[in-house]
Amino acid sequence: MKKIIIASTSTLHEERYLEYLLPVLESHFKNCKSILFIPYARPGGISHDEYTQKATEVFLSINISVKGIHEFENPETAIKEAEGIFTGGGNTFLLVSQLYRKNIMQLLSETVKNGTPYLGTSAGSNICGLSMQTTNDMPIVYPPSFQTLGLISFNLNPHYLDAALESKHMGETREERIHEFHAFNSVPVLGLREGSWLEIKGEKITLKGNLSARLFQQNQLPTELDPESDLSNLN
Amino acid sequence: MKKIIIASTSTLHEERYLEYLLPVLESHFKNCKSILFIPYARPGGISHDEYTQKATEVFLSINISVKGIHEFENPETAIKEAEGIFTGGGNTFLLVSQLYRKNIMQLLSETVKNGTPYLGTSAGSNICGLSMQTTNDMPIVYPPSFQTLGLISFNLNPHYLDAALESKHMGETREERIHEFHAFNSVPVLGLREGSWLEIKGEKITLKGNLSARLFQQNQLPTELDPESDLSNLN
Repeated sequence: MKKIIIASTSTLHEERYLEYLLPVLESHFKNCKSILFIPYARPGGISHDEYTQKATEVFLSINISVKGIHEFENPETAIKEAEGIFTGGGNTFLLVSQLYRKNIMQLLSETVKNGTPYLGTSAGSNICGLSMQTTNDMPIVYPPSFQTLGLISFNLNPHYLDAALESKHMGETREERIHEFHAFNSVPVLGLREGSWLEIKGEKITLKGNLSARLFQQNQLPTELDPESDLSNLN
Repeated sequence: MKKIIIASTSTLHEERYLEYLLPVLESHFKNCKSILFIPYARPGGISHDEYTQKATEVFLSINISVKGIHEFENPETAIKEAEGIFTGGGNTFLLVSQLYRKNIMQLLSETVKNGTPYLGTSAGSNICGLSMQTTNDMPIVYPPSFQTLGLISFNLNPHYLDAALESKHMGETREERIHEFHAFNSVPVLGLREGSWLEIKGEKITLKGNLSARLFQQNQLPTELDPESDLSNLN
């Protein structure tokens, strides 16, 4: 049975790393003594070790140990044997490139579909969709494909940001960018605001957190979904 | 002799399309009765015809006719025979994909390097750098490569936006994204604010407009460059 948390962000303004999610994670990973951390997205270019240390400190507070996938000789074995998996945020192009280079994209997808509890934040959430084509990140490396884990039948836009009405900036708003995506793709896109997450238990997908999420579907006006909305049939 | 205008944006807040650049363009294209428009970036998913019409209306006011590259049977011939070339903004992934699909990326680069006057705005400016890897756009299509025209020896970040200090949003700032680019790439990046442009005459590259530009170089602190700065030796 699938058991997945897909969070818009790891960190809320003026909070510590993963702080707002900690009670949820305690329950989510309750059968795990240790989890595997995938630090490939390397936010700000920090090292795999530094990033893993950051995750380790937080999970220590709920008595779960953390080991980075880069510490294993064989990343495939690391995934197959993991009690739980957490993919942190950073740059999605880098993360996806590494998952393909290590030849673990498909294995990670199958493993999570088969029930290994998974947590993704930001870039680690982006990869849960059908493709990474609705990421906000800069294409700092060239991945061999934009296809991702496909744990859900739609795409995500984490850190979803409403347009600032008073802005004089002429660059595209987030909504305009997603509209451009839908000029060429029919996949629905869920804009997850910071503080929102998706909880997946088996085939049930539920919007969690205090905020609404914005749903974009091709050739339709966007709609707002309330917390606790059921997204199981979105595709 | 190279003759190139690379503009951060086509449009300033509360101005009409290309309005602020019009006196510059009148001089830039003074030997052209007509120019070739490349509408492939299709902002907001509008059609090639609609986009070309928008450019046509503006250039009409300075007595220059416009023909879209999509109106030609052979895009290679269109580029070779063009008196001047203008690539409009929109989505850089889409633009680059189309230039490769039509097999004209290299021809366009050679043609502009050989002296055909060129104007790029936004996505049409992004492609003037060594790669499109510092675009702000969403990866709505998968291009066969991120390499671009290489008309200059550095990369651009058009619509450069300073971080909003009061923001509670936890997504990366533009500066943080460029910093991540430099964790993996040594190419300098020039953040061009809206209203700024580069003027290239032969090998001379000059920053134009009223605003400073922000220069990012690997392993160095960013610096601000004043208008009229000479960027000819940046690489």
